[in-house]
Formats: sequence, structure tokens, C-alpha cells
Amino acid sequence: MMATPNGKNNSKVPTSSNMNPKVYRAEYAVCGELSIKAEKLKSDLVNGVSHPFKRVVSCNMGNPQGLNQKPITFFRQVASLVEYPDLLKDENIELTLKLYPSDAISRAKFLLEHVGSIGAYPHSQGIPHIRENVAKFISERDGYPADPANIFMTQGSSAGVHLTLQMIVEHPNVGIMIPIPQYPLYIATLSILDTKPVPYYLDESKDWGLTLIELQRSYDEAVKEGIETRALVIINPGNPTGQCLTEESMREIIGFCRRNKVILLADEVYQTNVYQPNLHPFHSFKKVLKSMGPEYEGQELISYHSISKGMIGECGRRGGYFECEGLDPSILEQIYKISSISLPNVQGQIMVDLMVNPPKEGDPSYEQYKKEYDDIYVSLCNRAEKLWGAFNTLEGCTCNPADGAMYLFPRVRLPQGAIAAAKKKGKTPDQFYCMAMLEATGVCVVAGSGFGQVQDTAHFRSTFLPQPELFDDICSGIKAFHAEFMDKYRDYSRL
Amino acid sequence: MMATPNGKNNSKVPTSSNMNPKVYRAEYAVCGELSIKAEKLKSDLVNGVSHPFKRVVSCNMGNPQGLNQKPITFFRQVASLVEYPDLLKDENIELTLKLYPSDAISRAKFLLEHVGSIGAYPHSQGIPHIRENVAKFISERDGYPADPANIFMTQGSSAGVHLTLQMIVEHPNVGIMIPIPQYPLYIATLSILDTKPVPYYLDESKDWGLTLIELQRSYDEAVKEGIETRALVIINPGNPTGQCLTEESMREIIGFCRRNKVILLADEVYQTNVYQPNLHPFHSFKKVLKSMGPEYEGQELISYHSISKGMIGECGRRGGYFECEGLDPSILEQIYKISSISLPNVQGQIMVDLMVNPPKEGDPSYEQYKKEYDDIYVSLCNRAEKLWGAFNTLEGCTCNPADGAMYLFPRVRLPQGAIAAAKKKGKTPDQFYCMAMLEATGVCVVAGSGFGQVQDTAHFRSTFLPQPELFDDICSGIKAFHAEFMDKYRDYSRL
Repeated sequence: MMATPNGKNNSKVPTSSNMNPKVYRAEYAVCGELSIKAEKLKSDLVNGVSHPFKRVVSCNMGNPQGLNQKPITFFRQVASLVEYPDLLKDENIELTLKLYPSDAISRAKFLLEHVGSIGAYPHSQGIPHIRENVAKFISERDGYPADPANIFMTQGSSAGVHLTLQMIVEHPNVGIMIPIPQYPLYIATLSILDTKPVPYYLDESKDWGLTLIELQRSYDEAVKEGIETRALVIINPGNPTGQCLTEESMREIIGFCRRNKVILLADEVYQTNVYQPNLHPFHSFKKVLKSMGPEYEGQELISYHSISKGMIGECGRRGGYFECEGLDPSILEQIYKISSISLPNVQGQIMVDLMVNPPKEGDPSYEQYKKEYDDIYVSLCNRAEKLWGAFNTLEGCTCNPADGAMYLFPRVRLPQGAIAAAKKKGKTPDQFYCMAMLEATGVCVVAGSGFGQVQDTAHFRSTFLPQPELFDDICSGIKAFHAEFMDKYRDYSRL
Repeated sequence: MMATPNGKNNSKVPTSSNMNPKVYRAEYAVCGELSIKAEKLKSDLVNGVSHPFKRVVSCNMGNPQGLNQKPITFFRQVASLVEYPDLLKDENIELTLKLYPSDAISRAKFLLEHVGSIGAYPHSQGIPHIRENVAKFISERDGYPADPANIFMTQGSSAGVHLTLQMIVEHPNVGIMIPIPQYPLYIATLSILDTKPVPYYLDESKDWGLTLIELQRSYDEAVKEGIETRALVIINPGNPTGQCLTEESMREIIGFCRRNKVILLADEVYQTNVYQPNLHPFHSFKKVLKSMGPEYEGQELISYHSISKGMIGECGRRGGYFECEGLDPSILEQIYKISSISLPNVQGQIMVDLMVNPPKEGDPSYEQYKKEYDDIYVSLCNRAEKLWGAFNTLEGCTCNPADGAMYLFPRVRLPQGAIAAAKKKGKTPDQFYCMAMLEATGVCVVAGSGFGQVQDTAHFRSTFLPQPELFDDICSGIKAFHAEFMDKYRDYSRL
């Protein structure tokens, strides 16, 4: 029932039936039904309600510190000092030096000179000094110059993606190309912005690779439907797929954007989560674009980066940036205006500064920083491989290795009996399978349908972030559950 | 020129002419032309370019720490400790106790037990322990119970306002009642959400008061235009007006909402910035609603609060919360879903915890906390009065006192010569006046047109936040500028 100004009824305003339908339709599987159930199970265990497991493991989010990854000490030391500048005063410095290394102290002093107080509103585009360091980092990474005027600090990449997509959506018939499978932020944001997703499929059989043919098919189909495609989203390294694009493939993608006059939106938040750096290194789209010469000058690109992932994993802090390349100056002004309304928090920016400018060789904190960073990296490689191995032993399950990012996205071929049982419960087969896994093992993953998948296939996404000592337990739990599940619903026709 | 999928032209995508028109139309005067000019003047001074002043004073934003207000020491001590938990370890605690008081240490330990790492993604709705403390604070403030399940943590109130308005906007013909003058966040957000502002006017001649007659006029006019009014925004204490509503007026407003079935959105971020607590105390809408008895049970109310204002002034941190009262459970679920996509940062939540649960009498940090808090409060009272006195000496200028908030909103009656000169420059008279003030004095204020004002009047908003030692200089600078401005454009017919 809808309320009207002349004949109001008794229904509330708003309810789910007269609220914003674009918001109502938005889905965000990462924190959906499974995650709510996992929270419930956690509190059950605290309250003494027993389940077939002793702990719930949240493999549904890329939340390293939520799974006990230790933060980088140097970064936290600086963050701690800028919170309480009295520690830097002459009368305290002797004591402070017993608790903090000298380079953390000098970095904190230097940052405070530029930032003032971390409790003050920052510059709308982000603290100028920190944007300069970001530009320097990008130039050194890519070998091509970057301009602080084209960099905008954000409350994490999600906020940056929302802000920039919002700019592009002229009317409801604008289309945005997104990969399938994709990180559900994209499809949710497109729903809220009332614009058309134009899906292109990654090829599971080719390590989740991306072909020009598929991009063109996707674009052409949208044209037929009267959709005006304005942007192409790429996630590299991929989420949930873990693929790292080759330079050749990136050139093709840029060529495609150029020919079709679409802006390229490159989600590069996993750029340091790369586990086969020789075979499958990370290349930034900025670098590849710049290497393509003057013919590609002016091609529009927005690249996103974040403090939430990598070896840093400071996602609770909300920090990141995006760099704009080739954008019309009038749009940069508009981005500035919208950034002013929703300013990025300062501690997040401090962490961006540390990410792009960590301790250097010879600095007092370098050895410890390097060791912590490398230990996390090596451990992530090992955990990725271990979980990948486990998934590939499951009956009917195949899983590409993770070249990058923090996830595996195995395909499971489920028996018809399970598909029928899912239907009866009003669930997709993958949701049904994942809920059964959660209830049996306490491991919370995300069903593939939340990311999109080829019709009549079933997948799930799991991070490989849990602490190493839990891994044997997780793997054996999933193996036992899977075998039992398959037996329960066994027949010979599979999805 | 618009790009079409079949016949692309050479224009870029996006540009200001083919971007999202709702975003393009949004205006946010607080960080507009004047603020950009002020930034330019600041960098001029740094680079040795001379101007008629030695410093730029940003009176355009409610940014206490940006104007050198000292943060509350206890709050920052706790924030510093949770950043670097190694300080709490047994081997360091002796040294830590020399730099931090024991109650900051125990609070930090306690918070970390509930939060885990501040670098981890928090619960989508906000950290449960902190929401419990917020509920306790509200219950104690109001004398009526509050439920943590109805509280959502935010990245500052702006984010909360955006999120909740977004829920309500079912279609472009939905109307939201907003005060005129209003804080420009509202009109900008309504533009982005493509919904209709339904303006009601505050009465400058009655201390910016609010009458039922005016509310009804505004609502009825919207009905005539076919607009479905769904919500009423109130800012109390007022921004930019500084008014504190009487309990009687609040009862009338609630009655109005009840009769017309609109949800009340109460922006109460200035609830502790109240300078005449005996004459004009702050009452929360929650308390007044609850005091109205069972007949008003179920009336929908969302109340916003923040760490950015008050004596805390931690706006660079982005933290706050909103409480939902009487909302349909289906909408709470939807708010939860959208909150999951854009999680609030953890340090902002820590600061909310400290705001709602500061040191108590007898705690080691109580005396210092109380002194810092009271000093800021008394100083704000003095500065408000001083600036108010100065504005009221200006020729043709009248200014209501600030009962609350952080701003004065004087009316200036400008000579016709100034109005003509403004028109020639394509500016409104108030923008013209404010730009002249900035160029002559280095004081940056915001023109009244950014907030809305009765037609053919001119106002500006200035915070009274600059440090006390700057006040004489600011006041005498503005007086001299104003006299010169009036002389320059003098004639006898005024706006």
C-alpha cells in the first residue's frame, strides 16, 4: 500500500513496500543471509548453545585482521603517535623513545606538520602532502609521472567506486560493463544508482581469463537493447577469481575502451596480493596505458587502491585513493565538489601515506617492517595453496589457483537431489550448499550466485585468510561435510 | 553533445554535459567558490604573494580542530593506545603508565576486548558493545529506554543522513521538508537523490523560530504541486541559525508529523553546543516524543548525533550514530543491508564510545577532562557573544544571538550599488559581499544563498570558532571592511 498525500493510509513511511525500490533491490551477498546466520552461531557458542563445531570462521570477507592477521607494527606506531601528539613534546620524548622507534617519531612529527590535527576536516580532495606521496609512489611503480591534482583520497575503495560511478550515470539507460563473476559491491552500487549492468563473462576454463571477443559480445548485446555503455569495470587481480591479467590482455582491453569511447575503471586493490610474481605479475592499467604511446593519450582511466588489502589489511580504518587519468577538467571539478560533501577520514589517509612510503632500507624500523610484510606474504601463499589443494580433492569440485587477491572461487557440481532440496527451500543450489556447510562446519563462505556465474553452475567464494593453525581443521571439516553432503543427495545426474 | 552507442562523437565520457545531471546540479556552498579562493590565498601567503592580511581564517566550516581547538586529552590517549596494543603488554605497561593515565589504559584494554583489532571490519551496524553504551547514554539523557538494535554507527552524520534519506525516496515526486535556511548537506543530498525539497521557513524576526502555520503552509503547497511529502528534517540546535527549539514547539512538530504521517529526521549534532542552558535548553526529540504518551507510540523518528561537534570537535575522524524510533522492522533490515556495503570506520566508533561514556567523577582523568571540556565551552560562549556584538555594530546588519551550535547568521542590508555590481559579476549580492570580505580581510565565511533565505535578503554564516587571540583582529578587520564596502557602494535604497 502506498501513502498518498490526499488519502493517507495506516501503513508506515517508509516500509519495504514504499521505500526506494532501487535500494530495496540492491543485493550484497558478502553480508547477506549466511553472514547473519554466522553471527547467530557465534553468539550461540558464547551462550553455551552447542553446535557440531567449537568456533565460527568467517571466510566470507576479505578481513585479514578480523582473522587475527597482525597489523604492521611501524604503521600502528605512527598512527598511535599522531593520535596523541603530547608524546612528541620535549618533556616526554625520552620516555616515548623507549616505546617507539625514532623513525616512527620523526614520521609522526612530519605528518602532523602537514596535517595539523587528525581531528580536523582535511582538504576535500585529501591532504596535499599525502597526495604528493601517492603520486610519487605511482610514478615509481609505473615509470610514468603522476599528478597529485588527479588523486582523490577516499574512505576505502568502495566509497571511491560509488562516487565515480555516480558521476557517470547520466540516465537509467546508461550501461556499465562488469565482469561475471564480480565483487557484489558493483552490482549493488549499479542497482542503487539505477543503471544497467552490462555483464561480460570471465572464462573459468582459461584461468578466469578475459577475451576481446567476449567484451565485444557483451557490448554489442547492450547496443541491441538500446543501452549506452559508458564504462568498463575491471578487477585486477580478480575478486572473486584471483586472476592476474597479462599485459597483452590489458592492451586489448584498453584498445576496446578507446574504440568504444568508454572510461576504464580499474579496481586494483589487490595489486600486492600476487602469488606468482614471475609467471603472473601485476601490471597497473596506468602503466600499460602510458606504454601504448601518444595514440592513446586522453583515454580515460580511474584506478582504485586501498589500505584494506595487501599485507596491510587495515580495512576497519577505511582508507584509499583513486587516480584519474585523461579525465575532462570539468569532471575533476565535479568530483571535487562531491568529495567535499563526504570527506575522507584522516587516519585512513595517514595509513595511505604509510602504505605508499613505508620504511626504507637503513631506517631503524626497516628490518622489522620487511620481516612482518614478508611473513604475511609467504603465509598467504602457503594458505592459498593449501586451501586450493583441499578444494580440488572434493568430489565434483574444481578450483583454479589464486594468482592474486585473497580468495578461491571453486566450482561444485551438485547432485540433482541437492538441487531439488534447495528449490524446496526457496534457495539457489549454491546458497543451499553453503548454508549446509556453515551449519555443519562453522565455516562461512559466500555463495557464487552473489557474484554471478554461468547459468546452471554453482560456486562459492572463500578467503584463505584464517590463521594457519586453523587450516587443517577447516580443510578436514569441509572435506567431511562435502562427502556427507554428496552422499546424502547422491544420484548420477549432476548440475 | 551526447555520445550514443551507434554514432560516438569525439566528446569525452563523462563531461559536465553528459554526466549525472543530479550530481551536476547539487550545490555545496560550504566548500564552494569562497572556500577554493581561501585555499588559493593561503598558498599565496606561503609563497610570499602579499595580500592586505597576514593569515586566512576559515570561518566557513564548523571545524574546531582546524582552528586549533585542542582535542580532549583522555579521548586521544585511548585512541592512541588502541592503535598500538603492544603498549598494553606486561613488558611495556610500566613505561606506558608513565605516559598514559591508568583509566585510559583500562578503557583501551576493555575496548580492544570488544573490538578485536581496530583494523578489522566491524559489525555492519556498528560494534555491539559501543551501541550498548550509546543506548545507555540515550536512556540516561532522556529518561526513556533505548535499544542497541535500533542504533546504527556512521561515518559522521552526513553519511547517516544520506543513508536514511536514500531509504525514503521512493520516486522523484517524493518530497522532504527542510528548513530554510538549512545546512547545505540537505539540499545537496536531495538533489543527488533526485527528490523534491519542500521548504519551510524559519522566522528570523522570532529568533529563527518555527511555527505550525508555516509547516502546514509548506506541506499544503507541496500537496497542491502533487508532491508526496514523506519526511520532515529539523536541525536542532539550528545550523546555520543557532536556535534551540522549545519543548512546546517540538510537541507541535511531532503532532504535525503524526497527523500527516511523515517521518521526523532530527539532526541533533549540536546538542551540547547550547549557550543559554537555562533559558534555551536542548531537548531531544526522542524524549519529547516519548513524553507524549501512548497515542504517539509508533511515530517514526530518526535522530542523528556525531563526534564532530560539541566540545569534542573530532570531525576529521568521521564518526557518529543514528537512533531509529518506531521504524518498520523491514526498513531496519534494509538499513542494515546498506550499512554493510559502506562500513563505518572503527576509530570513529571508539570516539563515539568515549563521547557517550566519558571519565566519571573519581576517575584519574576526570578533573582534566572536566577542565578541558568546560574551558572549551566557556570560551565558545564568550566567542559567540563577542562576534555577535561585532556583527550588530555593522551598519545595516542585524544578527540573532546563537543559543546553540557554532554559527552566527547575520542579515546584511546591502546598498543598491553593491547589488548592481554583484549582478554585473554574475554573483548574488551575498556572494559578492562575502568575496569582497575575504579579499579584504582574509576571513572566509559562507554566503547566505547557500543555505537558502527569504527572497531579496542577504545573509552570511560565520563560525565563532577561531582561537580567542584572533578575535579582536577578525572583528576589527570586518568592521573596517564593512564600513569601506558600504561607503563604496553607498546610496539610500537598500536590499
